[in-house]
Amino acid sequence: MKPNFSLRLRIFNLNCWGIPYLSKHRADRMKRLGDFLNMESFDLALLEEVWSEQDFHYLRQKLLPTYPAAHYFSSGVIGSGLCVFSKHPIQEFTQHVYTLNGYPYMIHHGDWFCGKAVGLLVLHLSGLVLNAYVTHLHAEYNRQKDIYLTHRVAQAWELAQFIHHTSKKADVILLCGDLNLHPKDLGCRLLKEWTGLHDAYLETRDFKGSEEGCTMLPENCYVNQRELELFPFGIRIDYVLYKAVSGFYVSCKTLRTTTGHDPHSGTPLSDHEALMATLCVRHSPPQHTPSPTHGPAERSRLVSILKEAWIELDLGVAQARWWATFAGYVIGLGLLLLALLCALAAGGGVREVAILLWTPSVGLLLGAGAVYVFHMQEAKGLSGARAELQHVLGRAREAQNLGTESPPALLLQQEGDGTEEQ
Amino acid sequence: MKPNFSLRLRIFNLNCWGIPYLSKHRADRMKRLGDFLNMESFDLALLEEVWSEQDFHYLRQKLLPTYPAAHYFSSGVIGSGLCVFSKHPIQEFTQHVYTLNGYPYMIHHGDWFCGKAVGLLVLHLSGLVLNAYVTHLHAEYNRQKDIYLTHRVAQAWELAQFIHHTSKKADVILLCGDLNLHPKDLGCRLLKEWTGLHDAYLETRDFKGSEEGCTMLPENCYVNQRELELFPFGIRIDYVLYKAVSGFYVSCKTLRTTTGHDPHSGTPLSDHEALMATLCVRHSPPQHTPSPTHGPAERSRLVSILKEAWIELDLGVAQARWWATFAGYVIGLGLLLLALLCALAAGGGVREVAILLWTPSVGLLLGAGAVYVFHMQEAKGLSGARAELQHVLGRAREAQNLGTESPPALLLQQEGDGTEEQ
Repeated sequence: MKPNFSLRLRIFNLNCWGIPYLSKHRADRMKRLGDFLNMESFDLALLEEVWSEQDFHYLRQKLLPTYPAAHYFSSGVIGSGLCVFSKHPIQEFTQHVYTLNGYPYMIHHGDWFCGKAVGLLVLHLSGLVLNAYVTHLHAEYNRQKDIYLTHRVAQAWELAQFIHHTSKKADVILLCGDLNLHPKDLGCRLLKEWTGLHDAYLETRDFKGSEEGCTMLPENCYVNQRELELFPFGIRIDYVLYKAVSGFYVSCKTLRTTTGHDPHSGTPLSDHEALMATLCVRHSPPQHTPSPTHGPAERSRLVSILKEAWIELDLGVAQARWWATFAGYVIGLGLLLLALLCALAAGGGVREVAILLWTPSVGLLLGAGAVYVFHMQEAKGLSGARAELQHVLGRAREAQNLGTESPPALLLQQEGDGTEEQ
Repeated sequence: MKPNFSLRLRIFNLNCWGIPYLSKHRADRMKRLGDFLNMESFDLALLEEVWSEQDFHYLRQKLLPTYPAAHYFSSGVIGSGLCVFSKHPIQEFTQHVYTLNGYPYMIHHGDWFCGKAVGLLVLHLSGLVLNAYVTHLHAEYNRQKDIYLTHRVAQAWELAQFIHHTSKKADVILLCGDLNLHPKDLGCRLLKEWTGLHDAYLETRDFKGSEEGCTMLPENCYVNQRELELFPFGIRIDYVLYKAVSGFYVSCKTLRTTTGHDPHSGTPLSDHEALMATLCVRHSPPQHTPSPTHGPAERSRLVSILKEAWIELDLGVAQARWWATFAGYVIGLGLLLLALLCALAAGGGVREVAILLWTPSVGLLLGAGAVYVFHMQEAKGLSGARAELQHVLGRAREAQNLGTESPPALLLQQEGDGTEEQ
């Protein structure tokens, strides 16, 4: 590859809010999204919350001339909602469904039924290997009392590990999606710190769009204003993250967001704002010396984030085990009650009452059994993530203790990280 | 690294049959397994079916002086059963839980509750990166009428894809485990063909052990003889598979199996036989010219296997959708029945009968709902795997059509495959 090699990548990301029967003006918005994507002709359009596969097939047809390659990531009961349209051929794709994704009995939240996942696409562009990831993490329904916090942290860790282990031979890594994490949330810090990914909004010098890069705005007529009560300017939960490995350098030349309206006119394309980034990949080193990113301060920050995440998962394991134990006691109680009812029904006397009480007691037993199974599974899943974190934390501490002179073995995945700082 | 670099790796694999309360002589077998592993001092011991974490902790303590590094892969309701003991430090580990793993209502088979997975360990040995995978696929309970065939094929594909995407920078890849697949089964062929992994039993010149390398033998007193009725010599379902990438060469110098007895005396260590392989990794090319492995015949074989797997998954998708549709009708019927019962109860007359019938109709509704959710999830999971297969199949056909002259882009993952043929 020539030393003056340069590649421009135009990326589009949007959480489409495409819930059949529930999302307003869905068909119209899908049509306008298709028109916009065709007109703009991005290199890669990564979409979330395309819950209806019919919508995907509609877009697939509409976008075929401009984006010959497309893929829908299928998972869960409803579908992952993730899909991608690409101007360039997709060499390979695969997906990883998150082990933990909310609770099946929280039917009104529905995340469990979606099978939230991360999708991976491998593209070969002018001899460069691009690993593009698209994801959507569990939603946050109540920031003050967030019962899904542990699951979201576990998902962020699984995402970071999936990227880490599948991108070792990639030249450029790109992650787009709705993380349902504010920039300073634990999951976001963990993801960025462990993968070394850079945030397009923070890196670019040329940003135009919503205040503070927010992707859910009070101006957007589809947004539930109550959700933004604490955040008058909106929240930033959708991201374009990237990094270069193996001697390449990548920078975010421009970043645009929509601002609560259609890019041209009319109602917005979704309840989220779209992100449009222009990345520049080069084969030459940046013009200025990048500041060192693997110093003792960075190591110490990594250790502290890993520890914070470990504590969160540890709390989650304890809570899951508590629920499983509680369900275990209820199962015991249900069995006792059932035995008693059988005895009463057989002995005559209050036979009618005994038979009538069968329904709730069998229901109790089955319900408690399901809760037990679910929370045992949760505890095991969280234990798995916690063990990985503990191992990484141990190695990060070792690296920290060895001081700045010795290269931290831990940060192997960031070797040759060539992200150009702007 | 010197051209005469050479590394000898001694590997141990065993499905331990460690089901609490059910497996015979478990404690005694675990003790003897620990003694044996300590005495033999392998580089890596990979175990399956260690269902009790207490057994893992017992082995952990016992093996600590010889195997300082160990890890248990936690998942599912019971645990994945997978663990590993290593003489060398483990640099990194992670796990991938299979999307599909049997049916929750097949409680007597239990696989669904185990959270079957593949565990990955990254080891750095004398500057060489070794990716070691350990796995256990869904059991086969009835070969004539195998209701889990599709799930096992999907698992084999997920395993192959996980290895493919996570091992791109590894020098040597090792996969051990109980695949529950006979050597000529579709899943096994798919796995080997897509990853390029070589079978230690077929490759080694120095094999000692059971006839045809079988790992479940009629001689083993723990084996259910009925399971082997069709196979008088036993079956081979546990494997040591390997390959080298990036200019390294690996060969299997020796392979040993136990033969239905304890390696020294007494009852066997498990109902499966242990595999003990000595692999030799070298940095120099093999002494003879290896036969070309990417010719038109190989491509045609790959295409035919991919097609076979695609058909199997397609059948699985249709069947899962049929069950979901059937459950949908039952839900409708249950709702109608419930409405009728409510009307009867309110109207007097047969009030008592109506109330009594509430139990079965609510049960029917909930049961059908669960079946619907499960089979929808199954259909989506299988669709995801089928889409990946379809993509790969398309590219394999393209490569086939391009003929032998052009390098098949498809076989990227096998580039530089340096497995030494014996």
